Amino acid sequence: MKKTIENKANKTQITDKFWGHYLEVVRDQVIPYQWEALNDRIPGASPSHAIENFKIAAGEAEGEYYGMVFQDSDVAKWLEAVAFSLENHPNEELERTADEVIALLGRAQGEDGYLNTYYTVKEPNKRWTNVRDNHELYCAGHLIEAAVAYFKATGKREFLDIMSRYADYIDNVFGPEEKKLKGYPGHQEIELALVKLYEVTNNEKYLNLSKYFIDERGKQPHYFDIEKKNREDERPFWFNNDYAYHQAHQPVREQDNAVGHAVRATYMYTAMADLAAKIGDEELKKASERLWENVTQKQMYVTGGIGSMVFGEAFSFDYDLPNDLSYTETCASIALVFWANRMLNLEANSKYADVMETALYNGTISGMDLDGKKFFYVNPLEVLPEASEKRNDKKHVKAVRQPWFGCACCPPNLARLIASIGHYIYSQKEKELFVHLYMGNETTVEVDGTQVQVIQKTDYPWDGNVSIQINPEKEQGFTLALRIPGWAKGATVKINGEGFDHIPLIKNGYVYINRKWKAEDTVELVLPMVIERIQSNPQVRQNVGKVALQRGPIVYCLEQVDNDENLHGFLLPRDAELTAEFVPDLLDGVVVISGEAERIVEADWNSLYRPVSDQTTPVQIKAVPYYAWCNREPGEMIVWINEKR
Amino acid sequence: MKKTIENKANKTQITDKFWGHYLEVVRDQVIPYQWEALNDRIPGASPSHAIENFKIAAGEAEGEYYGMVFQDSDVAKWLEAVAFSLENHPNEELERTADEVIALLGRAQGEDGYLNTYYTVKEPNKRWTNVRDNHELYCAGHLIEAAVAYFKATGKREFLDIMSRYADYIDNVFGPEEKKLKGYPGHQEIELALVKLYEVTNNEKYLNLSKYFIDERGKQPHYFDIEKKNREDERPFWFNNDYAYHQAHQPVREQDNAVGHAVRATYMYTAMADLAAKIGDEELKKASERLWENVTQKQMYVTGGIGSMVFGEAFSFDYDLPNDLSYTETCASIALVFWANRMLNLEANSKYADVMETALYNGTISGMDLDGKKFFYVNPLEVLPEASEKRNDKKHVKAVRQPWFGCACCPPNLARLIASIGHYIYSQKEKELFVHLYMGNETTVEVDGTQVQVIQKTDYPWDGNVSIQINPEKEQGFTLALRIPGWAKGATVKINGEGFDHIPLIKNGYVYINRKWKAEDTVELVLPMVIERIQSNPQVRQNVGKVALQRGPIVYCLEQVDNDENLHGFLLPRDAELTAEFVPDLLDGVVVISGEAERIVEADWNSLYRPVSDQTTPVQIKAVPYYAWCNREPGEMIVWINEKR
Repeated sequence: MKKTIENKANKTQITDKFWGHYLEVVRDQVIPYQWEALNDRIPGASPSHAIENFKIAAGEAEGEYYGMVFQDSDVAKWLEAVAFSLENHPNEELERTADEVIALLGRAQGEDGYLNTYYTVKEPNKRWTNVRDNHELYCAGHLIEAAVAYFKATGKREFLDIMSRYADYIDNVFGPEEKKLKGYPGHQEIELALVKLYEVTNNEKYLNLSKYFIDERGKQPHYFDIEKKNREDERPFWFNNDYAYHQAHQPVREQDNAVGHAVRATYMYTAMADLAAKIGDEELKKASERLWENVTQKQMYVTGGIGSMVFGEAFSFDYDLPNDLSYTETCASIALVFWANRMLNLEANSKYADVMETALYNGTISGMDLDGKKFFYVNPLEVLPEASEKRNDKKHVKAVRQPWFGCACCPPNLARLIASIGHYIYSQKEKELFVHLYMGNETTVEVDGTQVQVIQKTDYPWDGNVSIQINPEKEQGFTLALRIPGWAKGATVKINGEGFDHIPLIKNGYVYINRKWKAEDTVELVLPMVIERIQSNPQVRQNVGKVALQRGPIVYCLEQVDNDENLHGFLLPRDAELTAEFVPDLLDGVVVISGEAERIVEADWNSLYRPVSDQTTPVQIKAVPYYAWCNREPGEMIVWINEKR
Repeated sequence: MKKTIENKANKTQITDKFWGHYLEVVRDQVIPYQWEALNDRIPGASPSHAIENFKIAAGEAEGEYYGMVFQDSDVAKWLEAVAFSLENHPNEELERTADEVIALLGRAQGEDGYLNTYYTVKEPNKRWTNVRDNHELYCAGHLIEAAVAYFKATGKREFLDIMSRYADYIDNVFGPEEKKLKGYPGHQEIELALVKLYEVTNNEKYLNLSKYFIDERGKQPHYFDIEKKNREDERPFWFNNDYAYHQAHQPVREQDNAVGHAVRATYMYTAMADLAAKIGDEELKKASERLWENVTQKQMYVTGGIGSMVFGEAFSFDYDLPNDLSYTETCASIALVFWANRMLNLEANSKYADVMETALYNGTISGMDLDGKKFFYVNPLEVLPEASEKRNDKKHVKAVRQPWFGCACCPPNLARLIASIGHYIYSQKEKELFVHLYMGNETTVEVDGTQVQVIQKTDYPWDGNVSIQINPEKEQGFTLALRIPGWAKGATVKINGEGFDHIPLIKNGYVYINRKWKAEDTVELVLPMVIERIQSNPQVRQNVGKVALQRGPIVYCLEQVDNDENLHGFLLPRDAELTAEFVPDLLDGVVVISGEAERIVEADWNSLYRPVSDQTTPVQIKAVPYYAWCNREPGEMIVWINEKR
């Protein structure tokens, strides 16, 4: 096994104001609410039945299975969010509840290790007959992820043992050996989970099974056809009969362009990067890099949203990024964060961390309101409420967040991401400690046997001043590699108050500072946050003549509540001065961008068309962070603003 | 009965080059092809079965009904196109074929006058049980229109008598009397047809039945609910259960905004204007005017396309005019021509004729290729072939015309419109002769008992010089009212070579020239055709910063074949000189617009987003008439061009 870059940083305590708020919301709102939901105690909401399904499977309750075929995964994501939350904020009662759920899972598990309530309760003789549609392996993956997180957070083995037994059983069902099924999941997820299970167990069987699922995918004869024939299923597959929906249209290693369901795709790409790193697989690494370039350079919204098509919740084609039709599922942006994190393990290059940061500060957290009570499944870059209401082709674009979803994938996914935010800040490769994200936290890492405390302080994302104090228990030589974000121009670095020319130390976007660190050594990084007008590649046909405003990692938008209706009539001159101001009592405290723009005069129009004769009038515009939109009065919203012409 | 403005002009011979070509194509291609289609003799095409259905209904063939529930209407539209074509171009063989079809219709008619092959053959006991969905009254309407046209063209009464019997029967089924059904058609059409039937028969019963259908519509209790209950049909109506699809959501006279299926709506508006004129109904007139303003000032594409939504082939909401998602069915633009024609009967105002002209020269004939062999059902204003291929929400937007459709409504509808083009040029109100359209033709009208020959010569739409020679059989005083199109600035008028100030004679866009006309009096009208950059009302959010090019009545577009791909990257400076040139060997002879624009340099882009830094390079652009797009190599097309900013 090749030694790979791994995220060894742990015991990270978030002290950050921005993320601290989100952690608190997840802890105090989302996790308790979701627990009530899983137990069918939310008045008015359609029941989840997810806990009840496990009770029935365990023989402790009577009744029928109810819910989506992947209902088990809601329990998994909740347990994983709980695990990450406990890391930052111990809570005995919550942990006891989790332990009880885990014990229930154990009792619901079959003698052979099988653990899926849908099949156990509803179709006990049909296990593994439809891995294309029925999410058995997907649910297993989420449960494995939760078990690993719970083990890491609490040190308790019970859940990990349950899932290891299940994984052992799955390994007996699928694989290259003659009597095993040659299948792989219709919804990828278990591939990345098995890598995590390998990391904590060191059992290579799990790594090999993950690699098997990746390598078997898309081969001919096609497994989805084989199992379809076996179950005598004549129905065409709904996505125009195209297995590109599952990224199973061709062998994974040959894939160049991101296609199909964006979450499935991106979970798979995450596992590919994981495997490439763990086993030193150069071909998988190249495939990961090709797909990364395609997604981030041709199919990603400026907010880190991916998947521009409601049909199939899918990628469409290069540069096809309509702002008003986008699907940009919250889960897809979350998956992009996972993938970026794994690409960073393959290679410390700021292009990965830049995308991770973009998704974290924009397209993921836009999925939840500031109170953690309402959620967007779809994160469009342009909303006209009347269009969402009246156009069938835009009905997926909700003008306001919803309390919960029938398919409740996004809220718990966001909960587990936020609760684990500390895992994305650092990574370590032997004597190199990389700092990918800037946020207040206290972490302890081990370098060459020395415990090193790292204390980061910053008012990010509103201010680009970052202070990092290094406290090794004894003087210790190592490299601190600081990411300079792509948006930061003229960054400066000081050590213990002394500036120096850091430019020669930059490699792939990171400043490599190698020295013997001693207690209270302090690095001060200044990342100037200026307001940038961002343009799209001209092949993005929807955005020609438009700019998006960005400051630091934050992408801005115009909301009707701050401006007026018909936001398309606001024209921003290229040379208009824009100012940034922190407003503490707005949207839990945000930097607002203001300036004088022009607005097309509507009053002098009394027809639908006429020969050109522009009339504009000066108007003040006010832009707020995209992630925080729709936390006040509902209305129009746009990210891409027409420029003055 | 109030005396109304009526289209009395007849015996119009088209001598126009532009429309003469289309008449020839309809005569030589569309009508013969369609005849083969109706008789299932097109290899490879799915059978129409429409003639066979009539044979089965007549007891002259064995078999089952086949085809859409409205298959009869294809025969009707073919007969109507034949009738109009015979007016301009007698053809004994074609007329004999039509007579045979008409005789067949007669034999398929029931004793009671009923004539619908679907119900006669397939569900003989279920007549009038589902007027919401099953198009019985719609088919009757098209057959009535055809019968009227055939009577006017040939003087033969047989078809007219058949349809009068059917109309009499329908009048016995529907109406206010106690035992009659209180229904009205799900697809409007018979309302306008009954007015035509009244015009040739003078039987007020038909006018009253038309008015009954209009006035009953949308009343509560809702007839569609009543008949649904009667047939024990529990299914919700597919259009989100909203009768706005049928414009039956509220009483017709109360309607302010165009909603629902665009063709149904516009056929109904046509009948409303008809009725308002015929019976002097001020309330219906006001409703027609309100709806006209809504459609043409808030819901119409610059090409005269209407219906911006594929779901329901429907209007959406004010100013919602996406260029790449539009439905803009050919039939809907055709219906807009009908409606404009009727509004002109209500009031001679050039705003109606301007829209009629726009639709005729752009959004209707774009539905057919120059050879009359392939057709667009949907006429988008922006096409990217890859999007049509890969995005499910754009699959209705075809990148190339199709040979025929399963639902073959548009091709025969276009055929009958083109064949009847001569009916839209003039209208007469007592001693006022209005000239609405400019095209080469020779017409004879009767003014105050005097036969007046009118000879129009022009190279319209490429040249705005129009000569109109007036040849009364004896000197005759009357008013010639010439439309000055909204796009024409600085028009001049001469009579027998002498110019005069016509401005004081203009009323509602028409120059009223009253004089004693004698043989060979010639009016010369010059309508300067300059290239205009047209802007949209700023509430059309998709078109901010864009212009459409128009010259005379012709709207232009950019095609990839003349320019390059990524047409959105072409920027047209406001002050760029544009020149117009007639190119005889291009697209059967068109005026091409050329000029120097700029193009965003794509070569210096190596990312998806970056801070603003425009690089443009000069580029020649070439625009061709929109109606003629997609007659060469397929590719991208746009009507709305980004301006240089």
